[in-house]
Amino acid sequence: MFLIVYAHPNPKSFNHAIKDRVRQVLESKGHVEVRDLYELSFNPILSSRDFETLLSGGVPLDIALEQDYIKKSELLVFVYPIWWTGMPAILKGYIDRVFSYGFAYAERDGQLVGLLTDKKVIIINTLGASELDYVPSGMEECLKKTTDLGVFNFCGMQVLKHIFLYSVPTVSHEERVNMLDRVQKELEEVL
Amino acid sequence: MFLIVYAHPNPKSFNHAIKDRVRQVLESKGHVEVRDLYELSFNPILSSRDFETLLSGGVPLDIALEQDYIKKSELLVFVYPIWWTGMPAILKGYIDRVFSYGFAYAERDGQLVGLLTDKKVIIINTLGASELDYVPSGMEECLKKTTDLGVFNFCGMQVLKHIFLYSVPTVSHEERVNMLDRVQKELEEVL
Repeated sequence: MFLIVYAHPNPKSFNHAIKDRVRQVLESKGHVEVRDLYELSFNPILSSRDFETLLSGGVPLDIALEQDYIKKSELLVFVYPIWWTGMPAILKGYIDRVFSYGFAYAERDGQLVGLLTDKKVIIINTLGASELDYVPSGMEECLKKTTDLGVFNFCGMQVLKHIFLYSVPTVSHEERVNMLDRVQKELEEVL
Repeated sequence: MFLIVYAHPNPKSFNHAIKDRVRQVLESKGHVEVRDLYELSFNPILSSRDFETLLSGGVPLDIALEQDYIKKSELLVFVYPIWWTGMPAILKGYIDRVFSYGFAYAERDGQLVGLLTDKKVIIINTLGASELDYVPSGMEECLKKTTDLGVFNFCGMQVLKHIFLYSVPTVSHEERVNMLDRVQKELEEVL
């Protein structure tokens, strides 16, 4: 199964168009589920109560549901805009809550090890910033390090691609059409 | 005025102790306000409705309240744990929503410029990871880049200190006491 985790508030956004294109490409290869975090009104706040439930060996119901989707998936595609050099809060909270100890990672012989070693990940980001702002300064490299390494590799997942689509608010319609085609091509390369 | 923005769900946490020590040190120098985002049940989800209000020149009421606290402050101290190489979602959403266009930054002659140029910032983070995990790998540098540069400098704010307190869950009580003293010393150096 393929899982798309999508976080953007506006159904008319370019992110929405990307998510639809990704779904279309994936559907030609197998079953696809989409978790649209805004549409789901996903609760992103990791609470004391969550900690208590997790520490006692339980899993809060809404977290268990998302973990089930991940368990069934071989490939996860995350589609979201970069806001303030990171994920929108609703997606950051999905990671904070769903990627819990015992599900995504655990301690083995005094070391933390990733548990999601059979999962592959593709990340697709839109940015308001330009490539010239982000690549020479090393910011793109830091986005890869904090996300690919710090989140997904940490859980044992393999990041196949991390696609950055720059200057989205200011490029032409034609360039955005090309970006969607690029997304399709990059997906087809690894499917 | 001094403003502490604090994000941790557990009142018995070490982050809570840090926040209390910071407040105590700042109170010896002036008026302090604390925004405890969990206690406030701050809504971190930037919505389509927020975008509409902001685009029409308005400001959602809960955002306006937080902006007022920032406007009145000369120094902001952020106290939070690093979760998944970033802020807890509730704080990420505070940035997503409160640091809005027209308040924190704006376009001038085709360039985005920071508007909070009279504000100073101190960031205090706890981490489960060790210094050995984060410094040689460049992850600490990336946390500075994404947060200090990507958020605060972008808005024109000056970051006085970014303090990383490593291995918090595994160090001794005495080491945590030393960490609190270090926080106090680092604050007193710049007050």
